[in-house]
This record gives sequence, structure tokens and C-alpha cells, in this order.
Amino acid sequence: MVEPGIHDDETLVADAAEDEVRPDDRIDDERHDEENRLKPEYVRGVRDALEDGDKTAVYDLVEPLHPADIADLLELVDSEEREQLASAITDLMTSEVVAELNDHVREVMMEALEPEAVATIAEQLETDDAVQLLEDLDEDDQKAIIAELEPETQAAVESALAYPEETAGRLMSRHVMAVPEHLTVGDLIDFLRENGDLEHDFHEVFVIDAAHHPVGTCALNWILTTPRSVKLTDVMKRDQTLIPVTMDQEEVALMFQKYALISAAVVDDSGRLVGQMTVDDIVHIISEEAGEDALLLSGAGDGDINEPIKEAYSSRVRWLIANLGTAVVASAIIAFFGAAIEKLVALAVLMPIVASIGGNAGTQTMAVAVRAIATNQLTRSNTRRILWKELRVALLNGGTVAVLIGIAAALLFSPMMGVVIAAAMIINIAVAGLAGVLVPLVFERLNQDPAVASSVFVTMITDSMGFFAFLGLAVASGLTG
Amino acid sequence: MVEPGIHDDETLVADAAEDEVRPDDRIDDERHDEENRLKPEYVRGVRDALEDGDKTAVYDLVEPLHPADIADLLELVDSEEREQLASAITDLMTSEVVAELNDHVREVMMEALEPEAVATIAEQLETDDAVQLLEDLDEDDQKAIIAELEPETQAAVESALAYPEETAGRLMSRHVMAVPEHLTVGDLIDFLRENGDLEHDFHEVFVIDAAHHPVGTCALNWILTTPRSVKLTDVMKRDQTLIPVTMDQEEVALMFQKYALISAAVVDDSGRLVGQMTVDDIVHIISEEAGEDALLLSGAGDGDINEPIKEAYSSRVRWLIANLGTAVVASAIIAFFGAAIEKLVALAVLMPIVASIGGNAGTQTMAVAVRAIATNQLTRSNTRRILWKELRVALLNGGTVAVLIGIAAALLFSPMMGVVIAAAMIINIAVAGLAGVLVPLVFERLNQDPAVASSVFVTMITDSMGFFAFLGLAVASGLTG
Repeated sequence: MVEPGIHDDETLVADAAEDEVRPDDRIDDERHDEENRLKPEYVRGVRDALEDGDKTAVYDLVEPLHPADIADLLELVDSEEREQLASAITDLMTSEVVAELNDHVREVMMEALEPEAVATIAEQLETDDAVQLLEDLDEDDQKAIIAELEPETQAAVESALAYPEETAGRLMSRHVMAVPEHLTVGDLIDFLRENGDLEHDFHEVFVIDAAHHPVGTCALNWILTTPRSVKLTDVMKRDQTLIPVTMDQEEVALMFQKYALISAAVVDDSGRLVGQMTVDDIVHIISEEAGEDALLLSGAGDGDINEPIKEAYSSRVRWLIANLGTAVVASAIIAFFGAAIEKLVALAVLMPIVASIGGNAGTQTMAVAVRAIATNQLTRSNTRRILWKELRVALLNGGTVAVLIGIAAALLFSPMMGVVIAAAMIINIAVAGLAGVLVPLVFERLNQDPAVASSVFVTMITDSMGFFAFLGLAVASGLTG
Repeated sequence: MVEPGIHDDETLVADAAEDEVRPDDRIDDERHDEENRLKPEYVRGVRDALEDGDKTAVYDLVEPLHPADIADLLELVDSEEREQLASAITDLMTSEVVAELNDHVREVMMEALEPEAVATIAEQLETDDAVQLLEDLDEDDQKAIIAELEPETQAAVESALAYPEETAGRLMSRHVMAVPEHLTVGDLIDFLRENGDLEHDFHEVFVIDAAHHPVGTCALNWILTTPRSVKLTDVMKRDQTLIPVTMDQEEVALMFQKYALISAAVVDDSGRLVGQMTVDDIVHIISEEAGEDALLLSGAGDGDINEPIKEAYSSRVRWLIANLGTAVVASAIIAFFGAAIEKLVALAVLMPIVASIGGNAGTQTMAVAVRAIATNQLTRSNTRRILWKELRVALLNGGTVAVLIGIAAALLFSPMMGVVIAAAMIINIAVAGLAGVLVPLVFERLNQDPAVASSVFVTMITDSMGFFAFLGLAVASGLTG
């Protein structure tokens, strides 16, 4: 329900006045270090004041902070201190601060409040921030809070929650500056003058036809530098990127990056403009999605340092158990060669080296492949070429490492041992290189997230092949008599 | 040398006209799949045309693409095809396409050109894109190309190259819309009308004092919605984020994210406005920096799938050699227990399980910690609390895995073996959990990049401790007689 124009939200609690004179140049103030983190001395000061129960001191210390920094502070202290802190700075706890909080910390804080209180906060937020506030809560809590919302907010929130998580429909802003296509630049400026609303920043004006379909966009700097008499349709950019309301957030983020967008129109199935996404939302998504790989590859789950213990345990342990499975498979291979090891215990000493380096080589290749798949740089069109390239890199790496360990083993044990371990190393690293590319691709083809599923399989392949190649070659070469 | 106003670049080669009518709604065109990648059939069509030497067909196929997509296409084909493609589409090879190319691919293409040709392309780019074009080239090539530049461009490029890589000074745009503070909104609009330049997008106007220091910013939507008579100093935002010219790109990206910025002023040591950074540059940096961890953690280096073989080899092999070192340390521990293994070969079968799971647990924790350090969520203020939390998660994980493997080992081997492996598992996972947090923190305290250096040390600790705990307990418990 987007009408051309701007929608007003009522604000019930004092928002920090935007034109208040505040210290500029955030870097060199006494509360932040050179990497823009709150200084430990400052945080300790706040903690001491909390311990003394000195609410006034706490308030005075926190008052000059930007909402994002207040959120940081709430995240740094432990849960007990957090409750005290929150109660000491009630009117600094604006909706801005709440919107900036880490998801887990915010969840805990919201759970401690009554539904009416949460609804009050939600009312002051933009729809997308309100939805973010509510979406991870218990379903019953969620229903209770939504029931307390004003009808307009309620409708917007429910409409957003109707879309799946992490899609454009869930994340978009419903406040869009949209104007009909017959206007001139002058008409538009007059309209903006009359209906000016400083609460909702916008960077572009969307031009729509009678059926509410976006036909072009006008960047604000174009509007400002074009004579009033010019028709919008003559100055607008027709080459536009439309985001379907069901598009996944990662795809949206990639589009924004690729086409260097500041904002983009979100359209429903029939092509009607229903909202917009702006680059500051995307920035958050990009960081999240790009940083996910390292966490997913190792099975660290959410990987948020603020994740509660129970959740961190349950997401990580399942991957450790999966790895237990692959380790047992590798051990079964060792058991198969048990007699050989009994005869030559040096095999037990050296075999973990082959498996370990192979595992590392596989992980390297996998990290590169997963990232390339995620950024659309590894596709069916260049798979063969990339595979061949990765194999050559693997052979070069394998050769180098094989020579080093081969010489060491030959000197410490026997020349034949040197040959065996060198050969096993080359084989394992080559296999690791291929597996590191192919396994993620297979999962991608099966529509599974490569970052999540590949690690277990690549490790299984490199461990098993490492032991098998080394022990097998040792037996085959007659080392064990 | 930024004067209030806008600077014009001369364009020597045809740029794609911006108001050309182009197909909108990029998603559902016949060349892209639903994830906005070029369809394999389309790419094959281009390749077939290249093979047939049919330059006209190639041109017709490529002509409708957005510059970013043309860059994608150049990246997908192999180096031979790329040369043919480039020669078939010479006037589509705008500076926009060159700016969008992957670094490695662009380097190869630029090396194939004469300095004068590269200089021509560089002239049409914004300074920051021109610098990106030149910065990775051979120093001699670089000098030759710079010598061919127009004096103004030459000065700008040399000034940018004077700053270290990946700093604000290197990456900033020198085109800034800056106006003196005594103007009114009306004055500003008139000024923009006269000096309007559609070539350089801007989203904010910076207000400077007589000493060229930024005193505030005016968002364009505020300018459009404020009456003409109002003074800029009354409507501008004084609360501004200033980026020092020496700030590292990762810090800049974090600031943009934290304070939800669209653009920010870059200032030199004396506080003078020298340029600006905008969020579309940041988006690229964020993706790069956030995605780096997985690659760095595994020693995959640049981790760019387009990296030439020689570079991929040299960055990855050094990590494999480092891992060879840690594997040898672990093997030395096994050798120490050689006699025990000779007596009970089951030890050789089971010991890799303990080391492997410990390694995974360590990697999980490390991935989380590295990310948290990079996003300023793990600082001295909450280290102790986080460490204690990670230890508890590790003990829970260790306990779970220990019970599973302990029961299996007790059934397959002997009850005492079950106890030994279970105990070793708990010890190793606990150690892994602590190491996964402490090692990155130590490196961060030593001003080294935790993502790069931690992996080797965490692996060494978990492998060594895994073998030592298991084999040591096995001997101590009398399993080996």
C-alpha cells in the first residue's frame, strides 16, 4: 500500500534531535581507540559506576554516545550489568539503539519486557527494523506484541512476515518516494517542498506509470542540476534494476555490488512497486553473507560471538559428530593396514603428515571455490578451465611438499620411505585439489549451500585418501616385508 | 586540490549514453539465469561465434550487455578467447568495463597493451579507478603509462599512489561537492543548476569553512525539501564522520556499516577536506574484507579464482610448508610413543580421531573469534567473559563427542580404551576451544592479522595435544602393559 508521497510515523519517545550540536570527528574522542572501538578504560568506568549503583554517573558517561556505540556498550557488558545499564539510561534507549543491537542481545532484552513495551519500541522503528526486532522471537510472544501494535504498523509487519526470511519482501523498506510519470522536474521539487519529511531519507525518486509499475528512477543530484521545465521522463534513468519481492538477500546484495546501486525498486509478481531496498541495508547483508563462509565451512553455525551457549553448542556439535563419522571412516582404513603398522611403526609416525597436508590443501581450494561460487565467478561456463588450473596448482604444491618431506623421510628412515611418502603426498594433494573444487560444485548443483556441506566430504576424501595412498604404497613397495 | 565545484573529465572514447533506452528488469532477460549469472547457453553462443571468427555476431551478442556483464563475460572465457573477444568489441570496451574487471584479468589485458593505450583508458576513469588500474602493474610499466597521462590526471594519480595501498587516501574520490558555509539553500541550488555535471554522482554536499575544514554535510533530500531562504548552517548535519586519509580500508568499511553512512569526508592531517568515500566503494571493500577470512585462515592467499597459477602456487605452498612443520612436530610426539604403538596397534588406528576432531573444534572457534575481532565485537572489554563462554561450549561439545567415541571404542576394543579416548577427546577439545580464541587475540595484540597467522598455531596445538593426551593416557593407564 504505497502511495506516492511520504508516510509519517508518530514518535512516542524522544528521538535524539538530529541537528543537536554533537562532537564531530569521532575518531579522536576520548572514548574510542584508533580502531573506533570503545576504550577498555571507558567501559571499565561505566562498569564501576554500575557496580556502585550510581545511575547518574552511568547516564552522564553514556549520554554523549552515538546510538550505535550505545548498542556496542550493551553488547560488551554481561547480562546482569546489561539490565542495570538499561534501567539507568531509559530515555537514551531509543529505537535507534535497539535497531543497532546484535540480534542475540536484542532478543534477550526484548524477552525481558512486557509485550506493550516491545510494541511501543516497534512502533517507532521503520517497518524493516520492527520486523527484524520481532522475527526471531517466540511465536506466542510475537503474536502478543503484534496484537498491541497500531493497525497500520500491524498490517505492515504482518505483510512483511508473510514473506520468507532473508528475502527482499521481508527486508525492504515500504517508504518509497514514487511519483507519476507526467511531472516535470519543477513539479517534483514543489511536491517535495510541500510534503518534505526529514524522517525518511531517500536517495532516488521512482517514477511510476498508471499501473504503479516503475518506469525509471531520478537520482537526486540530477533533479538538483536539471532545469525545472524538463519532463521527468526525459531525465530519468530507464535502465533500472528491479528486485523481485521473493529474491534472496544474498542475490540482492550481489546485484547491488555488481551494478553499483544506491537503491533499487522492489516489485511484486505483477510488476507493481511495493518497496525499495537501499545500500545501507545491503552493506549489512554483504558483511554477513561474505563473512559466513569461514564460519559455515568449519561448522561454526551462526558464528556470532554473542550467541547463547545452548545454540552455539547445538550447531557446532552436529558438525563435530559428522566429522567423527568421517574420522572413523579414515580409521577403518588404517585398521585395514594394521598388520603393516605392527611391522613398521614408522608408518604410524608419518601417516598423519600426509593426511594433514592433504586436508589443508583441500581446505584452501575449497575456501577459494566456495567464495567463487558465492560471488558468481565460478559457473558452468568456466568449470573445466578452473578445474584444470586448480589441478596444476595442486600438482605444483604437491611436488614441492613431496620433495621436502621425501628428503627428510629418506634421511631419517630409508630412501624407499622417502619415495613412498613423496608419492603419497603428491597423490593426496592432487586429489584434495580436485575435491576442493568438485565437492562444492556438486552441492551447488543440488541446490545446497556449498559452504555448509562441503567441508565434511572434502575432509573425508583427503583423510581417507591420505592414509590409503601412504599405507598402500608402503605395503606395495615391500617396505613392510 | 579540491575546489568547490565540479571537475570535468574529457572523454575520448564513446561512453555508453546514459539515457539510451535499454531493456529494464535485468532478471528475466534471456541472457541471465535467475541468479543473475550469464547463462551457459549464451556464453557458449559467444564462444561459438568467436571460434567461427564471426566478429559481427560476437558484437551483436555482446552489445546489449551492461558493462559489468561484459566484464563477467571477459572473465569467464579463457585467455585466447579473451583476446579475440576484446578485438571484436573494441568500442564496447569502455572504461566502465575495464573498471569492472577482476583485478587479475585486467592486469593481463593491460599488459598486452601499449602504454599509450592504457593511458587513454586511464584518462577516462575516475582517479580511484585509474589508480586501481595502475597500482598492481609492474613498476616500469606503471611509470611508462603515467608518463603518457595528461598533467592533471598524472598529478592526481601520483598523489594517490603516494598513499599506502588499501588506505582512504589511495581509494578516495577526489571529486567532492563542497560549498562555503555562508550560503543559503537557494544559493546552493542555483550554484548546482549552473555547474551541474551529470558525470559525477554525488549524494551529499559538504560544507566547508574558510580553512577548507568540513563543518557539516547536507543530504540532497534535505536540500530538496527545505525552503530556499534557510541557511545551510541551519539545516546541515554537524554530527559528521571524518575519515583520516591514512585510515585502513577495513576500518573505513566498519565505520560506514556502523554509522549507516552513504558518503564521508576524507581529511588530511590538518583537517582539510581532500576527498570523499562513498558507500559503493565500501560495498566492494566489505565483501572483500569479510570474505577474506576463510581464505586467509586456510592460507589460500588472494583466493581469487582468477589468480594466475604462479601466484596461487606461491601463496598457498608457503602455508602448506608451514603446516608441514607443525605436522612434523606432531609426528615427533607420536615417535616418542613408538614403543607403545608397537605393542598396541589399535592406538595408531584411533589416535587420528582425537587429533582430527580437536582440529575441527579449534577451527570452528577460531573462525568465530577471527570474525568477532574483525568486526570489533571481541575486544579487551569482553575477552574474559567470551573465553569462559567458549570454554563451556567446548566442554559441552567435548563431552558429547567423548561419550559417543568412548562407547564405540569400549565396544570395539576394551572398556579402558573407551575411557582413555573419551578423556583425551575432552582434554583436546577444551584446549582447542581456548586456543581458538587466545591465539587470534595474541596476534591481534601483536598487530598481526589474526586470520593469517592463527591457523598454523591452532593446528599445531590441537594436533600435538591430541596425540599427546591420547597416547600419554594410554600408556599411563597401563593399556600397553
